[in-house]
Amino acid sequence: MENLDLQTLADMPLLINIVWTMLAAVLVYFMQAGFAMVEAGFTRAKNAGNIIMKNMMDFVMGSLFFFMIGFSLMFGDSIGGFLGGSGFFNPTSLADEAGMFNGLPIGVYMIFQTVFCATAATIVSGSMAERTKFSAYLVYSACISVFIYPITGHWIWGGGWLSQLGFHDFAGSTAVHALGGWCALVGAKILGPRIGKYKDGVPQAIPGHNLPIGALGVFILWFCWFGFNCGSTTAATTTLGDIAMTTNLAAVAATLATLILTWVRYGKPDVSMTLNGSLAGLVGITAGCDVVSYWGAIAIGLICGISVVFVIEFVDKVLKIDDPVGATGVHWACGIIGTLLVGFFSTSEEVGLGIFYGGGELFLKQLAGVASVGAYTLVAAFIIFTIINKTIGLRVSAQEEEDGLDIHEHGCSAYTDFPSK
Amino acid sequence: MENLDLQTLADMPLLINIVWTMLAAVLVYFMQAGFAMVEAGFTRAKNAGNIIMKNMMDFVMGSLFFFMIGFSLMFGDSIGGFLGGSGFFNPTSLADEAGMFNGLPIGVYMIFQTVFCATAATIVSGSMAERTKFSAYLVYSACISVFIYPITGHWIWGGGWLSQLGFHDFAGSTAVHALGGWCALVGAKILGPRIGKYKDGVPQAIPGHNLPIGALGVFILWFCWFGFNCGSTTAATTTLGDIAMTTNLAAVAATLATLILTWVRYGKPDVSMTLNGSLAGLVGITAGCDVVSYWGAIAIGLICGISVVFVIEFVDKVLKIDDPVGATGVHWACGIIGTLLVGFFSTSEEVGLGIFYGGGELFLKQLAGVASVGAYTLVAAFIIFTIINKTIGLRVSAQEEEDGLDIHEHGCSAYTDFPSK
Amino acid sequence: MENLDLQTLADMPLLINIVWTMLAAVLVYFMQAGFAMVEAGFTRAKNAGNIIMKNMMDFVMGSLFFFMIGFSLMFGDSIGGFLGGSGFFNPTSLADEAGMFNGLPIGVYMIFQTVFCATAATIVSGSMAERTKFSAYLVYSACISVFIYPITGHWIWGGGWLSQLGFHDFAGSTAVHALGGWCALVGAKILGPRIGKYKDGVPQAIPGHNLPIGALGVFILWFCWFGFNCGSTTAATTTLGDIAMTTNLAAVAATLATLILTWVRYGKPDVSMTLNGSLAGLVGITAGCDVVSYWGAIAIGLICGISVVFVIEFVDKVLKIDDPVGATGVHWACGIIGTLLVGFFSTSEEVGLGIFYGGGELFLKQLAGVASVGAYTLVAAFIIFTIINKTIGLRVSAQEEEDGLDIHEHGCSAYTDFPSK
Repeated sequence: MENLDLQTLADMPLLINIVWTMLAAVLVYFMQAGFAMVEAGFTRAKNAGNIIMKNMMDFVMGSLFFFMIGFSLMFGDSIGGFLGGSGFFNPTSLADEAGMFNGLPIGVYMIFQTVFCATAATIVSGSMAERTKFSAYLVYSACISVFIYPITGHWIWGGGWLSQLGFHDFAGSTAVHALGGWCALVGAKILGPRIGKYKDGVPQAIPGHNLPIGALGVFILWFCWFGFNCGSTTAATTTLGDIAMTTNLAAVAATLATLILTWVRYGKPDVSMTLNGSLAGLVGITAGCDVVSYWGAIAIGLICGISVVFVIEFVDKVLKIDDPVGATGVHWACGIIGTLLVGFFSTSEEVGLGIFYGGGELFLKQLAGVASVGAYTLVAAFIIFTIINKTIGLRVSAQEEEDGLDIHEHGCSAYTDFPSK
Repeated sequence: MENLDLQTLADMPLLINIVWTMLAAVLVYFMQAGFAMVEAGFTRAKNAGNIIMKNMMDFVMGSLFFFMIGFSLMFGDSIGGFLGGSGFFNPTSLADEAGMFNGLPIGVYMIFQTVFCATAATIVSGSMAERTKFSAYLVYSACISVFIYPITGHWIWGGGWLSQLGFHDFAGSTAVHALGGWCALVGAKILGPRIGKYKDGVPQAIPGHNLPIGALGVFILWFCWFGFNCGSTTAATTTLGDIAMTTNLAAVAATLATLILTWVRYGKPDVSMTLNGSLAGLVGITAGCDVVSYWGAIAIGLICGISVVFVIEFVDKVLKIDDPVGATGVHWACGIIGTLLVGFFSTSEEVGLGIFYGGGELFLKQLAGVASVGAYTLVAAFIIFTIINKTIGLRVSAQEEEDGLDIHEHGCSAYTDFPSK
Repeated sequence: MENLDLQTLADMPLLINIVWTMLAAVLVYFMQAGFAMVEAGFTRAKNAGNIIMKNMMDFVMGSLFFFMIGFSLMFGDSIGGFLGGSGFFNPTSLADEAGMFNGLPIGVYMIFQTVFCATAATIVSGSMAERTKFSAYLVYSACISVFIYPITGHWIWGGGWLSQLGFHDFAGSTAVHALGGWCALVGAKILGPRIGKYKDGVPQAIPGHNLPIGALGVFILWFCWFGFNCGSTTAATTTLGDIAMTTNLAAVAATLATLILTWVRYGKPDVSMTLNGSLAGLVGITAGCDVVSYWGAIAIGLICGISVVFVIEFVDKVLKIDDPVGATGVHWACGIIGTLLVGFFSTSEEVGLGIFYGGGELFLKQLAGVASVGAYTLVAAFIIFTIINKTIGLRVSAQEEEDGLDIHEHGCSAYTDFPSK
């Protein structure tokens, strides 16, 4: 063993935080694979290549534009608490002399924030699947990474007005998921339903083509969510296990709730809805995973697992918005619900107690965060998608949609020579 | 760099153990994806949605019931070394005043133990695939997480009588794999073979429908096994690399042994059997990965890689138990064999030397552990499955089995609209 | 919290380096899954089982032979800077009295080096896919892990002559990727094209059968590359985030460059070529990920993303070498290009400045490394493949190739009973 070296020892607290945050960043990157598999599996084979390309390219556009512009809007010197205004095209200039930013070397902090931004971007591809023009999707991907995510991200995590207010969104039920969900809702609404989705106003089921890879995507997302939630400490702490436990308990409770509810409502336990139930619980616990009790996490999971079913039906049947993979039910609804439930279930005096623990003020702050982020995102997404729609055009032609986007947009088939006999 | 802060430094040994154990827990969680892909890939397409749901739900039931009851049975205050008896429905109450349990914050310890419990549960779905009623499987999942795994887990890892005796099962060849394997054997026996599996008593091959995702599952399991074995230190130690090396060497030796044996016996190197060979090596090294030499690990791998072929044939042809994915050959046989081989190959004076290194006593302890855990699990699994069989019924109807469980149990098809042309 | 324990604290710097290196090793192991999925997805269904077996077995052979012989050739006491000459069949004997080797416990160091070696081996299976005899591939796998990778590895990372010269290949653009690429090129050349690949000298497209799993493979590889590049520190450092950022930026820039280039050249953005573009960027940044700026990484990515398209076309149309998955374009070309570009883009005074930053000498060293490793590998691979070809025979019969390797080599079909209806 080595001798006691005081200088090396002084670096240890920093180095262990670096290792932890790097692990979390790598896991959050891998959510891209999870989303790609979920969205490919739960849509039709003729669009599988296209949806995978969209998932790949929103990460690409997100990474590039967040590096050049988004990070500075989110974490640059604040302009009145509303957006950052320094560091553009040279974000490492935001670091101090030692290269540190928010307690970590800026490169570590930046890779972690980059993969978070890309997660918000990728939610939208699911709700807009099977009919969105590829070029339009590329433009959208850049826009969300510049005009939407970093702005509200500044409010919540960049020292902006919501963080000053005391809004609590630990790992991003609102900052990532509800935000992505709002964009998904607006995009799918403007785009209109897929051909054949509604017959005389009645929604028709269009089943996904490959449940095993869809399910694999859900397992991957769950795996990576431990990085997403536990990693949002950006430090090694004694609370990491509690965050993992609340994350996992909410997810399992939600899965069970959805399973039972679909069994009762539809007569059989539904596979793809139950898998969405898992994601609903994960989205819902994300805001409060650090401040709720284990039993509180189970309660949040149950509420989200039930809500996702009704919201997916509501979007499908009442709003008549065609969301092929249920992204709005999962990310939009449970992002909002989970954020608000922190106001009921928080056990933290520091953050503020939830209503069930004698508090009340925190709930109002949560409401303010949900409403303001929702309002901004709704308007911004509406403007962006409308401009894209009027210029490039959001939607492929009817012929392209019928034949499949793979052939027309990419000149390929996702599956050929298959099965072997 | 930061200044030397003595209080922060004092936490470092704990924090680094937390980071390591969290990483391991996350990897062990992801074994669920591996099992789901292996079992889906190696069974028929008409049951793929169902087997995935079973894999998802045993994790759900396992997590919930282990949290509420199992953890307390395994780690609560011992009642005579046979089971824990405190902490029910409030397992965090088992922690000390600082929130610590067995050297880690209790949340960290609990998430790690939860994913281990769920691994034991999920082994069974493979051997009972393609004919087990979904509702029955849910009940079984809760039962193994309450009545089986935590009890013998208490004996081995909870300070119970086997740990006092000196039985050595580092990461669970017996505690997880042989235990799951015993349940798998009993369940498959009571359930009976799939329709068409035996013609005039001669077993018929029923090939899996998707080797690539089955193989992906094996790669995922191997990846996660580094968390399973190396993480069972629940601490950062200088021995982690040795454990990874013995784990990997046993797995590669087993894979090669199976490959060659199938080549010799069947005339061609068999794909799915070789993939089972990899898992056999991983299961076999799990008990002794911390106490055997690198060459000892290779020997254990070779023995397991050969054994798995003969045991799968024995179960199939002699016992006439229909185990669609070979789970008994892998987990039951190699779990037992690997545990016993510690008694031959251990190089540790602390744990006890193996027979090949001049010891002897350790082998008797290993035998005691294998026999006692086997006896308890055999009886408990028999009672549980018999009760389920007599009440809910374990097996779907012949019609459901012929048509596939996906349609009847879940109203879906795993693959639709496929291939695109 | 615990009290300050000086002895325990003295171990902290080592333990944190162990944890980091273990994480990296586990991620690099998982690249095997990525390569298996990429190669299976981008080739035909009738060979999917075979290609997965090859990916599995090159890891098996690589792990065994690198343990027995390769590690000692690479890291044993140097014979004139050209190869190591001690530790055979007992590589742990190379450790010092405390069990340490190159700053880590030798087991940790060895598992990390083992998974690197196996990565080099596995590159070749893609270029030789769909027509290589399985037995021949096994022999090749052992040979590269003994006669090729460890020798040049000794030069670069084992203290040999290239490292003394100042050649900089941080994580292996040359040591792993160009080396594997040279072998891939030689192997595919000797093997000859697949039946039907060239008609009157004009290359015919033979599309892959399963884009979703191919894409999953690319996501897995990207995920694991953070371990490959950031982990090559084999220590926790403050630079890990910078390495992750340069790695990611190069990959996204390359992906975008390939996408746009294929869009311009072929009229549509090409799915499989774009996915190769991602890999091209990752390969290209690997040599210099620790010494280039973020913008430098983007430039390297752009160059590699463009180069991969032209090199794949060049190999296909001009050299008329049939490389089913484009492994030479990715690993060979971008491995070489990325290594040379360090000589242009390095900002490190310690390593040597690149030409764009006023340096010059470094470029010559990079050229020396690329040329010498290329020359050795070219000759060694030629000898090995020629000997295999003249003895065992490299290629299956025309009948076997037409029917598919799965049936003839393994007696199985990768997909059966599919789709369910």
